[in-house]
Amino acid sequence: MGRTSTDRHAGGPRPHIVIIGSGFGGLTAARQFAKADVDVTVIARTTHHLFQPMLYQVATGLVSEGQIAPPLRVILRKQNNVNVVLGEVDSIDITARTVTSQLLGRDTVIAYDNLIVAAGADQSYFGNDHFAEFAPGLKTIDDALELRGRILGAFEQAELSDDPAERARLMTFVVIGAGATGVEMAGQIAEMARKTLAGTFRNIDSADARVVLVDAATAVLPPYGGKLSAAAAQRLEKIGVEVQLGAMVVDMDYDGLAVKDADGTVRRIESQCKIWSAGVAGNPLGRQLADQSDVELDRAGRVRVEPDLSIPGHPEVFVVGDMMAVDGVPGMAQGAIQGAKYAAGVIKSRLKGDDAGREPFQYWDKGSMATIARYSAVAKIPIPGTSRSVELAGFFAWIGWLFLHLIYLVGFRNRLTTLIDWTFAFTSRNRTQLAVTEQQVFARNAIDRLEVLERDDEAA
Amino acid sequence: MGRTSTDRHAGGPRPHIVIIGSGFGGLTAARQFAKADVDVTVIARTTHHLFQPMLYQVATGLVSEGQIAPPLRVILRKQNNVNVVLGEVDSIDITARTVTSQLLGRDTVIAYDNLIVAAGADQSYFGNDHFAEFAPGLKTIDDALELRGRILGAFEQAELSDDPAERARLMTFVVIGAGATGVEMAGQIAEMARKTLAGTFRNIDSADARVVLVDAATAVLPPYGGKLSAAAAQRLEKIGVEVQLGAMVVDMDYDGLAVKDADGTVRRIESQCKIWSAGVAGNPLGRQLADQSDVELDRAGRVRVEPDLSIPGHPEVFVVGDMMAVDGVPGMAQGAIQGAKYAAGVIKSRLKGDDAGREPFQYWDKGSMATIARYSAVAKIPIPGTSRSVELAGFFAWIGWLFLHLIYLVGFRNRLTTLIDWTFAFTSRNRTQLAVTEQQVFARNAIDRLEVLERDDEAA
Repeated sequence: MGRTSTDRHAGGPRPHIVIIGSGFGGLTAARQFAKADVDVTVIARTTHHLFQPMLYQVATGLVSEGQIAPPLRVILRKQNNVNVVLGEVDSIDITARTVTSQLLGRDTVIAYDNLIVAAGADQSYFGNDHFAEFAPGLKTIDDALELRGRILGAFEQAELSDDPAERARLMTFVVIGAGATGVEMAGQIAEMARKTLAGTFRNIDSADARVVLVDAATAVLPPYGGKLSAAAAQRLEKIGVEVQLGAMVVDMDYDGLAVKDADGTVRRIESQCKIWSAGVAGNPLGRQLADQSDVELDRAGRVRVEPDLSIPGHPEVFVVGDMMAVDGVPGMAQGAIQGAKYAAGVIKSRLKGDDAGREPFQYWDKGSMATIARYSAVAKIPIPGTSRSVELAGFFAWIGWLFLHLIYLVGFRNRLTTLIDWTFAFTSRNRTQLAVTEQQVFARNAIDRLEVLERDDEAA
Repeated sequence: MGRTSTDRHAGGPRPHIVIIGSGFGGLTAARQFAKADVDVTVIARTTHHLFQPMLYQVATGLVSEGQIAPPLRVILRKQNNVNVVLGEVDSIDITARTVTSQLLGRDTVIAYDNLIVAAGADQSYFGNDHFAEFAPGLKTIDDALELRGRILGAFEQAELSDDPAERARLMTFVVIGAGATGVEMAGQIAEMARKTLAGTFRNIDSADARVVLVDAATAVLPPYGGKLSAAAAQRLEKIGVEVQLGAMVVDMDYDGLAVKDADGTVRRIESQCKIWSAGVAGNPLGRQLADQSDVELDRAGRVRVEPDLSIPGHPEVFVVGDMMAVDGVPGMAQGAIQGAKYAAGVIKSRLKGDDAGREPFQYWDKGSMATIARYSAVAKIPIPGTSRSVELAGFFAWIGWLFLHLIYLVGFRNRLTTLIDWTFAFTSRNRTQLAVTEQQVFARNAIDRLEVLERDDEAA
């Protein structure tokens, strides 16, 4: 690909820590070295740190992308030993201890003393990659803006249709995957249809929209278990979401999807706007680590790291965050943050020469929360020292969710503007961030036009 | 194109007013009919009403796109006689009194009793349409996000470059056109370089960025004239913008542009990131009106309407906003708003049968304002009944600009969140909306890579 090859940041007098990724894992790891006598290079695919748990709020118009995605180099401005470079990592050579990245059109080789791989996970379609075109996932800002355009665009198209079947297809939204993101998306689409958009159309009633949440599992939010899963499902049904469990998506096209129920029957749902939140696959860099060492990947392509989060035979290479597979650690922000702190701690201890007797990484489950709709969330908070948890469903869980997410947002500015956007959104029916970029709508329209023309041609 | 053809909204019992466009002209016109016994259809290319005077703030990270682009149908929710449809108008037949639009992949014919064409203006490259690829204009949300990505992306690329010439090229920003948008963009880029991004890079100093404002005219902000133009130029120079007047852009490519000075010499400026704000061209629908009637277009393709803003022989067809050419009316929000109010007033009077003795359209110049940087703007406010104006330059003009633009923003929510974003931005160096969509950065990187590879191939 690239024609030239240069060494960067190599051979400095101080240990060089290279971090791949700018998510919770990458950012946390970089910050841990603030006072350390090292050079840190963060190689990131985007210029921002993305607060991914709120991405569904960008997709559904509650907040702007800027509020949940401050620039990484602005966050790290004062940490002089950190160098942020924008680039995609093509390969890791754990023998040579180098990372090769395309920077500015040139293959650039960066040497490291310690490497922290925190490149995250991509959406997984379980081998059905052609589903991606019809049902985007929700991993990036562009995904969120794409989905915002598709959701609002489907209503716009329905408004123009006089054909009841076409209209029903356009007003059926199917969310695949009843984890936190799927539940939150389904809940928000239902609220948009019934509140935000109510009364804004003339030929359709947006409240007629059908929102279907499909999952092959037998419960929504499975990690929450019994009572909370049931409460979440009940609340979803109450705000108008059809919850279809034990239902596996077996095929998909532009106009709909085929779903196989637990009894083996296959049925079709006509739906133009489909959203995928069913699975994740560790970043392909994990494969490279597995090919060069004795480390194994789990079924989702995540790296089965050692108890100290390094890989066998390479105590200088760590994997944290969604790329890491450690039993009992969920692919959530807390897991990434704790893993990054631990890995950075190991490196700092070793640099000081006092690494004897280190405990293996232990995940402290601070609890999980998911919002369902306004005033409604579920929360499960383990009681330390016991195997029991406090379980909350409803208003207080929701208040807790708001509070915690505000605290975790980066920057006072973002906290304040988000608080204001939320206050308005939750006390009225309006949302501040409903602007749609033309790329999405026009792309959709273009496809739609082509489909119509092609269908007409086939029929002729 | 489309295979089917359907009539919509035709033959209703009430007069049917069709409005093309959702800008200041289209939205204002639609609102004028709130209490009228008519049916109104607004055909818009986007789902939002865009507050275009603040688009430069989206491009430079001060506000989010949602704050300046609320959905048209949410604004008009309670006006039951308005129907908003998303679509591009392909043709107008002023004899048959129909508008043909591609809606949902089908040619759709919409009959009207009165037509208000407010489709706005596009960027004009004065016959050099190939400049568009290298120097995007600033007319849509997508333009603003594209420019945000290009500006921040150029700094990211410069950070990665070790070649002084390449670095200089990447850190040279050229704004072509010293009207309000050009002045505002140049001022904001300079402020971003010197304040927002200061200290965030390690290999470059963002404050070294060169911001060049080029115009063939001999003054910045020509409509403001003498003292204010000089004050604006002086202030721009003070914040680090190089103002190059009497300089016409004669060629452009990926790496820079050729500029012809007043003395006839042609020189080259090496610059990757270029922004075009030099000219506008009326929407091509104007051409259709001219072909079917005796109306003429001016050099910018704008429609030279009758004194009552209709076109000759067709008192039922009005043109308002940036598409309209009336001497003394600038292509600004005020002109569009006043024209739309007037045209809607003519229609409403005629429907009541009392159209005798109507005065021709008269533009009331409420004044103009442009910001240069924080704490600095110019304003020119005519004194009614005289030919003189109050001229302000500096802090009070800036406070006036802030205040007026807040008032004109649609929705209390947007006003409040914008006020907060501004308060933070203007009292600190940070900006809340610096997230970059991947489409832009990746497109830039892809082009950049290709260019590098091609150049290497040519050199080989």
